[in-house]
Amino acid sequence: MMVTMEQLQAFLDEQFPQGAAFGTLCELGDGTAEMMLDVDETHLRPGGTVSGPVMMGLADVTLYAALLSKIGLVPLAVTTNLNINFLRKPVAHQAIWARATMLKVGKTMAVGEVFIYSRGVEEPVAHSTMTYSIPPQR
Amino acid sequence: MMVTMEQLQAFLDEQFPQGAAFGTLCELGDGTAEMMLDVDETHLRPGGTVSGPVMMGLADVTLYAALLSKIGLVPLAVTTNLNINFLRKPVAHQAIWARATMLKVGKTMAVGEVFIYSRGVEEPVAHSTMTYSIPPQR
Amino acid sequence: MMVTMEQLQAFLDEQFPQGAAFGTLCELGDGTAEMMLDVDETHLRPGGTVSGPVMMGLADVTLYAALLSKIGLVPLAVTTNLNINFLRKPVAHQAIWARATMLKVGKTMAVGEVFIYSRGVEEPVAHSTMTYSIPPQR
Amino acid sequence: MMVTMEQLQAFLDEQFPQGAAFGTLCELGDGTAEMMLDVDETHLRPGGTVSGPVMMGLADVTLYAALLSKIGLVPLAVTTNLNINFLRKPVAHQAIWARATMLKVGKTMAVGEVFIYSRGVEEPVAHSTMTYSIPPQR
Repeated sequence: MMVTMEQLQAFLDEQFPQGAAFGTLCELGDGTAEMMLDVDETHLRPGGTVSGPVMMGLADVTLYAALLSKIGLVPLAVTTNLNINFLRKPVAHQAIWARATMLKVGKTMAVGEVFIYSRGVEEPVAHSTMTYSIPPQR
Repeated sequence: MMVTMEQLQAFLDEQFPQGAAFGTLCELGDGTAEMMLDVDETHLRPGGTVSGPVMMGLADVTLYAALLSKIGLVPLAVTTNLNINFLRKPVAHQAIWARATMLKVGKTMAVGEVFIYSRGVEEPVAHSTMTYSIPPQR
Repeated sequence: MMVTMEQLQAFLDEQFPQGAAFGTLCELGDGTAEMMLDVDETHLRPGGTVSGPVMMGLADVTLYAALLSKIGLVPLAVTTNLNINFLRKPVAHQAIWARATMLKVGKTMAVGEVFIYSRGVEEPVAHSTMTYSIPPQR
Repeated sequence: MMVTMEQLQAFLDEQFPQGAAFGTLCELGDGTAEMMLDVDETHLRPGGTVSGPVMMGLADVTLYAALLSKIGLVPLAVTTNLNINFLRKPVAHQAIWARATMLKVGKTMAVGEVFIYSRGVEEPVAHSTMTYSIPPQR
């Protein structure tokens, strides 16, 4: 692993100045990461569902963390493709969290998957796969 | 068309109380819609790029508008799948807008595509396809 | 589990009269399935790669098997969305196999994921997620 | 345009020795292509539907043709991601055709979309987006 949890958290805080709005890093492995997001009113849709873009944002940043655990603190990796399936309704005022795993980390491209969970729902509420483009020099 | 632009804008304002944060309806056709979003600091990533979740959120609400133009003001249609390709870097402090077109509106399922543009970039900055699940009674 | 491996193999043979061209069932669990495909010349691209459509076909039938393990022998479930990431080059003349897991089986819709492996490559060569539409009466 | 229709057809025949099984080039533009496939018994599923993998294969080769119209006869461009939505049931014994359009052709990556039609069905039967990885030297 090329980076500690503290280094990565500091890097994300810098990259995402909106901060906690993007979630908190709970775990970091070699190509894996887990982040949690406290859901508040701004994240909800009528009917009390956590909005899709909030889940997509959490999936995106969590897989980014998993990728950085493999390649180090490269600021210019960008998402090029995201696919997400919404599986179940999250519980309205409960935290959601995401578990990300890299499936491939190549020289110019990386692919990974993310499961999103909602406190109070046993099975995943969403599943996403993403592709990142990695800048040539690093 | 089952709904006017004014009715739909009022419905979206109610559904999305965060309001303008989700964009403004510019055009509504029979299975098509166009929405614009004024980009501010909260939408940006370091390097000045409009963040992915902001584009996904705009794509989602614009296709929702296009769907409602076909089925009327059904509040319970939910996104079940979203796929997005990020094609080009949007210009940092310029508005983005989305043009959505339904590809299929069935009884229980609808599919459509969305192109996202950034003012100052001629070609699309992102392209998304989405599936909506439509509740049985309406 | 609503169906045995023998019943499912017989059902697939009937549904896919091209037969072994679609692979052989190796394992069947409660919402999981594994199938293998012997790769021959007709499956290859120049350079000796197993072609994409061959992998997509194997992914599709394997997830179909996993779905039927949950809902029984419903002939009319159809794929509505497929997303696949090609991760590594399969070995040219080696068998490929697929491991499918359902992520959600609802009343009208089911979602699952499939990992594809190539004999001689340790990590997956492809990863796919799919949505099936399930006919209302069953 | 870097290649004529005759050059591209000859190149595809060489790349895909299974030949007509992958379809015939009907039109080639600057970043666009159209191919047709005569459907026979081997392409069908019970109930008379053209199988998903057949449509995915046609989508793949048609977008490959559209890409080559932009970058020339580069044999090593490979599909890295494919997403497809199946929209309507194709007519069983009628030809299907595909219209492909590049959305972006970058140095190392290209993205495009494909609509698939079935003779006798006015609206598209499937829609696909794909990403290609382009080898560095060319």
